[in-house]
Amino acid sequence: MATLAIRGGRILRTDMTVTEADVLVDREAGDIVEIGAELGGDEELDADGCLVMPGLVNAHTHVAMTLLRGHADDKPLDAWLREDIWPVEAALEPEDIEAGAALGVLEMIKSGTTTFADMYFEIDRTADVVEASGMRAMLGHGAISAGKDDEAARADIEESVEMARQLDGAAGGRISTAVMPHSLTTVTPELLERAAEEAHEAGVPVHYHANETRDEVDPIVEERGARPLAWAKERGLCTEADFLAHGVHLDGTEIDLLSETGTGVVHCPASNMKLASGMAPVQRLLDAGVSVGLGTDGAASNNDLDLFDELRDAAMLGKLAADDASAVAAPDAVRMATAGGADVLGLYTGRIEAGAAADLAVIDLDAPHLTPEHDLVSHLAYAVRGSDVRHTVCDGQVLMRDREVLTLDEAAVMDRAATRAAALLERAGV
Amino acid sequence: MATLAIRGGRILRTDMTVTEADVLVDREAGDIVEIGAELGGDEELDADGCLVMPGLVNAHTHVAMTLLRGHADDKPLDAWLREDIWPVEAALEPEDIEAGAALGVLEMIKSGTTTFADMYFEIDRTADVVEASGMRAMLGHGAISAGKDDEAARADIEESVEMARQLDGAAGGRISTAVMPHSLTTVTPELLERAAEEAHEAGVPVHYHANETRDEVDPIVEERGARPLAWAKERGLCTEADFLAHGVHLDGTEIDLLSETGTGVVHCPASNMKLASGMAPVQRLLDAGVSVGLGTDGAASNNDLDLFDELRDAAMLGKLAADDASAVAAPDAVRMATAGGADVLGLYTGRIEAGAAADLAVIDLDAPHLTPEHDLVSHLAYAVRGSDVRHTVCDGQVLMRDREVLTLDEAAVMDRAATRAAALLERAGV
Ligand SMILES: [Zn+2]
Ligand SMILES: [Zn+2]
Repeated sequence: MATLAIRGGRILRTDMTVTEADVLVDREAGDIVEIGAELGGDEELDADGCLVMPGLVNAHTHVAMTLLRGHADDKPLDAWLREDIWPVEAALEPEDIEAGAALGVLEMIKSGTTTFADMYFEIDRTADVVEASGMRAMLGHGAISAGKDDEAARADIEESVEMARQLDGAAGGRISTAVMPHSLTTVTPELLERAAEEAHEAGVPVHYHANETRDEVDPIVEERGARPLAWAKERGLCTEADFLAHGVHLDGTEIDLLSETGTGVVHCPASNMKLASGMAPVQRLLDAGVSVGLGTDGAASNNDLDLFDELRDAAMLGKLAADDASAVAAPDAVRMATAGGADVLGLYTGRIEAGAAADLAVIDLDAPHLTPEHDLVSHLAYAVRGSDVRHTVCDGQVLMRDREVLTLDEAAVMDRAATRAAALLERAGV
Repeated sequence: MATLAIRGGRILRTDMTVTEADVLVDREAGDIVEIGAELGGDEELDADGCLVMPGLVNAHTHVAMTLLRGHADDKPLDAWLREDIWPVEAALEPEDIEAGAALGVLEMIKSGTTTFADMYFEIDRTADVVEASGMRAMLGHGAISAGKDDEAARADIEESVEMARQLDGAAGGRISTAVMPHSLTTVTPELLERAAEEAHEAGVPVHYHANETRDEVDPIVEERGARPLAWAKERGLCTEADFLAHGVHLDGTEIDLLSETGTGVVHCPASNMKLASGMAPVQRLLDAGVSVGLGTDGAASNNDLDLFDELRDAAMLGKLAADDASAVAAPDAVRMATAGGADVLGLYTGRIEAGAAADLAVIDLDAPHLTPEHDLVSHLAYAVRGSDVRHTVCDGQVLMRDREVLTLDEAAVMDRAATRAAALLERAGV
């Protein structure tokens, strides 16, 4: 067994307590072997003065949209999609996806995220980036019916199913998959049912956007005579494996439904603020025992992929939503960013315990904004930012050591993304 | 004339456009002399690949509260003040103020803030830190009547006036002052009037908390028969020089009053979220032409003093408050964090133009989360974080060069703050 020992730090336990301990990792199996005092390994990673925490889980993003970071902000959702996003997405080439995914993956490694769930196009290119970078990902082809004829819409869902079957288990098991119909309103009812059926037959989850805006929820209620999630459940989209992004506008019956079915929710607070979508009832979801993770959504509505922002936003916005300063307390927010997201994706990561995936972020605490150290869990929720991450470990491999990413050529990734992004906007004529 | 040239970068102009230019600074006068191509100076600061922006203005904080960072989070406001904050503040010693202020000032310099407005106690100690650190500050003794007998309450207001007179113009003009009665409900009406009268006689502003929570606004309306700001104006607290913190719960008449009187508002979005105070109507304030700046408030309700967080929060939360994704656009948010805050404080800083104070932050753009560069103003609002600041210049002096703070001993400041913070909580018995 080739081992890696993370030595000299304090570790964040699954119960959100912090204790001094070393962590021993099996580099071949990619999991945590032991937590204890004075553990030595074949390779060592210095965590002196640091907090060792589970790698963060970004449970909903569209990673290649990093190419559109800052391209068009501060516009109403409809105009933004029609004028700025869709025309560009129509011009995307597979090389763009690869360049944008590499940029996003680089950014996530540098800010302590080790797992992400991605809904986008040309996902074999994203899979290549995941393979090379050493990250963990759940990938899915985002299928959409709107603007397509029946045959094309059907083919799109088939592609989502086919890609999910093909890529599941790739990159030595670091890649898992889901079937990803875009949303309850942009995919036809028939194809949503089919997506669910085929996903579950293939043994993978369904992931989709739901209950994001009032403009999306109200017509469903009026035209289909049911709350969106009651309607979705009837179509087979709310099993324990499945998970939805957003869940901003949920009523009590839907919160119960999520709790009873075990369907996960990915809360995207920055996106919900930037697009003025609303405030998700996060404390109510937690009280009901719903699995909740955090997501950045795409960089175009964020504008970065630093999940520490979401962690802070979730704790902050959750209090406003509940009109209660004690809501979404720091430990709950940190749990959503780690084990919560892992549970939503059905992965055994996001916690430092023997047997779990060796996915870790080592936080350098030697900084003015992290002084004094009354409460390190509070720091994680309210003061740590991605740039405080010193080392990132995923699947037992060191992806970043002392802020140097070892698996990607940082300058080359940034250059290529900048070049492709400029050419893309030119090609799209926006 | 001893000069400093900031060379090779792009600069953020007052109209929020970005152009390539060097900036020439008079180090003795502490102001900007010229903006143009190929400017040389006695001293030079490399800004190659960087964005040169005005130093940020943190227009409302309680800087020494950094000692309480993470001490008690996620509690309802009342219990938090009674159980966690006031007992500790009662145990504060002048040395604590100095240690906490040094920590906060260090943190602000490292995140590009060059000016802050501070309401707290033992402000001569904070003034010493400002003097040594090279920052710019508006200081005021926070006077409170609650819990004091008449004489003590009166003496407290007198101390605020006296300190304002004494310290105004200190540190070679980098320190200005205000009289700072704590709020419209914690200081008696008589003493509020007196504070305003004496402040204006001394030629300094009055600064106070107002319209922060419903629990504060509703009783004023009921018991005094007027909206808080109409009542405050009657007491002389709403002149053009004056400014208030928060302004979360404002009605239309109060927005008009602010606009007509020229009274400034410091928006503290992180504090307002963390304490579940509500969402300030920022776009409506801007539409009405009110002077709006940004503030972190104290570190206990934030939990850091990185004003880039407020910048992003203001843009994000402003959209939710307005239910409009186009509200509080990036340029407006950046303006609030710079020139807006300066206008609120009545200082000629926060803009890069000849004659303005040479207060600058140089942002390193060579990072994945700032790639590609479609729109640098968008990056400032949504993606830049304090750790991207490479150099900080205030009053013509380089306070941080290549992330090394030149005016303070970073390790010593952090050590002392950590030691004093631990002893303080022990002494306070919390
Ligand atoms: Zn999405
Ligand atoms: Zn305050």
